[in-house]
Amino acid sequence: MSENSKNLPLLPIGVFDSGIGGLTVLKALRTRFPEESYLYVGDTARLPYGTKSPETVARYAQSIAKCLLNQGVMAIVVACNTASTHGLAAVKEMAGNLPVLGMIDPAAESAMGATNNNHIGVMATFGTIKSGAYTHALTSLDPAVKVSPVACQMLVALAEEGWAEGEIAKSILLRYLDPIFDRQDSPDTLILGCTHFPVFTSLLKEILGPDIALINSGEAASAKLESLLIDRKNPERPEAKFLVTDDPVRFADNALKFYDSRLNPDDVTLIDIR
Amino acid sequence: MSENSKNLPLLPIGVFDSGIGGLTVLKALRTRFPEESYLYVGDTARLPYGTKSPETVARYAQSIAKCLLNQGVMAIVVACNTASTHGLAAVKEMAGNLPVLGMIDPAAESAMGATNNNHIGVMATFGTIKSGAYTHALTSLDPAVKVSPVACQMLVALAEEGWAEGEIAKSILLRYLDPIFDRQDSPDTLILGCTHFPVFTSLLKEILGPDIALINSGEAASAKLESLLIDRKNPERPEAKFLVTDDPVRFADNALKFYDSRLNPDDVTLIDIR
Repeated sequence: MSENSKNLPLLPIGVFDSGIGGLTVLKALRTRFPEESYLYVGDTARLPYGTKSPETVARYAQSIAKCLLNQGVMAIVVACNTASTHGLAAVKEMAGNLPVLGMIDPAAESAMGATNNNHIGVMATFGTIKSGAYTHALTSLDPAVKVSPVACQMLVALAEEGWAEGEIAKSILLRYLDPIFDRQDSPDTLILGCTHFPVFTSLLKEILGPDIALINSGEAASAKLESLLIDRKNPERPEAKFLVTDDPVRFADNALKFYDSRLNPDDVTLIDIR
Repeated sequence: MSENSKNLPLLPIGVFDSGIGGLTVLKALRTRFPEESYLYVGDTARLPYGTKSPETVARYAQSIAKCLLNQGVMAIVVACNTASTHGLAAVKEMAGNLPVLGMIDPAAESAMGATNNNHIGVMATFGTIKSGAYTHALTSLDPAVKVSPVACQMLVALAEEGWAEGEIAKSILLRYLDPIFDRQDSPDTLILGCTHFPVFTSLLKEILGPDIALINSGEAASAKLESLLIDRKNPERPEAKFLVTDDPVRFADNALKFYDSRLNPDDVTLIDIR
């Protein structure tokens, strides 16, 4: 047993995102593992990742993984679909034996478990859709699955503006989703393929009705992580700490839209990652 | 006369923005100076600037100005309100005797010239509004002016999605503007304080009617630049070249939303700026 693994029980779960959306994943993790501590990195100086090239996103993901590994974590959750698509392999390589989980595969597996008509919708950012990551993950599990992807670029801004409810949000969701749901052979399962999107869950349920299964990638990744974690009890009081690359005050202010509680600005630290 | 100024007539006008919005400024410049050549830098790897801290934005602006000065330009137009707010002083210092123009002061002067009731509305990104740059510029010109700022964070995403017309855009504009225009003592002049926003000009005219003056910061800066340029005729065929820090193809594809013509992907070059 290495020096590092002896210390494992004291280390937090590392979680990172381009910004604030990954807090929906942290929320799902804390719900499933309330006894654990967490170290969250939001790369707010370089957000959003969704519009950037694969190479740039991979480089950013590596720089954050390095930061988390330097701080000491017992697992890494890449709480960003774009970074999962383009940076997961590199992060896994850097992390050695530590569990590393992205958003794509757990959500794809969860969606395959939920669908009855073998038709799955995917809403995500332009970058994630363009990469074909979900289509690839889903067809790897079942070549016969039908996938209907839709790039919903506006929803990130909408979520960050805090307009997750109301007529404007509803119109925008309908504009994006009508082309795939307003027809006979529509999907029975919809992957929320961006960590910002769980804030639209109630509105999506209202629009789509109870028969469409919504796949929250944070919840899917949490379920998957359970099987990878060693049985352990964290002897310390669980806590969550936040590192951001820009504007900690704004991050703390906006966290409530994506997280279950208001953040104490003192828990949010500015760091430099390049 | 320095070596540099002898070469002036051969050099393009340098224009930069965090991404693609500055193309509305380039469009205004080309309308006023059709005989000039242009070198445009879009920092697409690090966009948007509107959500970033003053220090980060200033650092980015300096790195791009350095790039433009290395390439050789005869003037620099900071075609981004956020970079103008936080980076203009640093860029001016780097540029020595070259004319350097931002978006804020020309638009403020133009607005002061247009208002009759001395009440000016400013729509801009969160970062620009939070900086108070327009309020400061306007009250420097007339301490008695009344300024009504409104942070319209969603409009950038809306413009980039190409949804500049239609009911969704109208609802969003109304939601932002109603609080300042839906009352007795409303502004008679509105500064479009983000280079993305000129794409909403027709819709804004429809919503606000003919009595509200709209100030396009690209047009205001072009008018100002006219007084700073030496009288000259560019002997070469005018051209515009584009440098971006990420995804040239997407930049070329999206340019039509903000520019008067489709870009040739071969005119858009990927560069690395840090």
